Amino acid sequence: MAKLIFLRHGQSLWNLENKFTGWTDVDLSPHGEREALRAGAAIAKDKIHFDIAFSSVLRRAVRTLHLAERSAGQFGADEIRTWRLNERHYGALQGLDKALTAQKYGAEQVKIWRRSFDIPPPYLSADDPRSPRIDPLYSSVPKEMLPLGESLKDTLIRVMPFWEQCIRPQLEKGKNVLVAAHGNSIRAMLKHLKHISDSDIVSLEIPTGTPIVLSLDSGMNIEEEHILG
Amino acid sequence: MAKLIFLRHGQSLWNLENKFTGWTDVDLSPHGEREALRAGAAIAKDKIHFDIAFSSVLRRAVRTLHLAERSAGQFGADEIRTWRLNERHYGALQGLDKALTAQKYGAEQVKIWRRSFDIPPPYLSADDPRSPRIDPLYSSVPKEMLPLGESLKDTLIRVMPFWEQCIRPQLEKGKNVLVAAHGNSIRAMLKHLKHISDSDIVSLEIPTGTPIVLSLDSGMNIEEEHILG
Repeated sequence: MAKLIFLRHGQSLWNLENKFTGWTDVDLSPHGEREALRAGAAIAKDKIHFDIAFSSVLRRAVRTLHLAERSAGQFGADEIRTWRLNERHYGALQGLDKALTAQKYGAEQVKIWRRSFDIPPPYLSADDPRSPRIDPLYSSVPKEMLPLGESLKDTLIRVMPFWEQCIRPQLEKGKNVLVAAHGNSIRAMLKHLKHISDSDIVSLEIPTGTPIVLSLDSGMNIEEEHILG
Repeated sequence: MAKLIFLRHGQSLWNLENKFTGWTDVDLSPHGEREALRAGAAIAKDKIHFDIAFSSVLRRAVRTLHLAERSAGQFGADEIRTWRLNERHYGALQGLDKALTAQKYGAEQVKIWRRSFDIPPPYLSADDPRSPRIDPLYSSVPKEMLPLGESLKDTLIRVMPFWEQCIRPQLEKGKNVLVAAHGNSIRAMLKHLKHISDSDIVSLEIPTGTPIVLSLDSGMNIEEEHILG
């Protein structure tokens, strides 16, 4: 049996500013840093040792991982980054104020973009300054694989190959795994593990800076689940 | 051509206390933290991008890496830890005050332990509380591979398989590599790369918190070297 810990990053500067973030690489707020430190302390208090850590390539997830490691007092785990654990890509909405966007497109349309399973936001053009296809951070990824906007379903589709090829094999070997990621990339994996329907997953809230601990058998069935917070 | 950056950790709390440290897992001092932040800023100023990072499992190296990444603004690199990049194991001297040790064993004997190539310090017993063979941090390493005291030569012998199997292949693929480690584990790799003799390597000083940047061709020959500081 292995333990899987999901840790959604703490509050970011753009959460504070009420902007659509997506793949925008904003840092944690001071409150988000404290959330990450508390998460690590909770992991230490629960006496959970993790053998390997995965995170997105976005700094709010990486820094959450680093701060949690520090307060957990655990420094020995390899840390593997992947764009596949990034937040849902919010396309042309990234950087826009949420309230102004609702005024411009209508609150109902914004709700559809935010809360539907398979309706993507307006796409970025490939040469938009916000496009990951021109961002050096993604230079090692084939351009056609990088999204210009995603529905939650699109996010699931790009997260799951990494789950199958990289995370699941570690758990099957009995390794405890920490995944520092984002609301929608964690939703993808929880949907799979807990057999959650398309309509239910959109409203599943993942708490920030709060470790979700799953004990899994070798068939990836959940034997126990608890939240540290 | 690929770049290899060696970064020796900043000052630790035991550097301040003048104790033999070795594998003792002490944290950075506040000065050491500042050194690490400066190292990252220097990497950013030199516009060096690193694709992957390796470190020891000791927190003073891991935290140096994390602080350098933060001030470099580079969060995308996988971080691979290994006991093979740890500091030289100082055996039964670990935790002892350097001045008191010189009084007890004689300054000449201590100098031999510190500055000879192949004379190990007094060994720990396998059940000593300081033994890595009973430390959970090393539970995944076969016990017989874990040292109870090392000469510099012993350190080289356990560092080099990791160089050959893990670090060198990344450089051969053209990846830029950052190695956050310790005076003696960095000496091991520099001795190999620069063909330094057994007698000369013992006096090669590696500056703390100061990136050493090597440009290597595919045969691992040094084409250029500079120090950021």
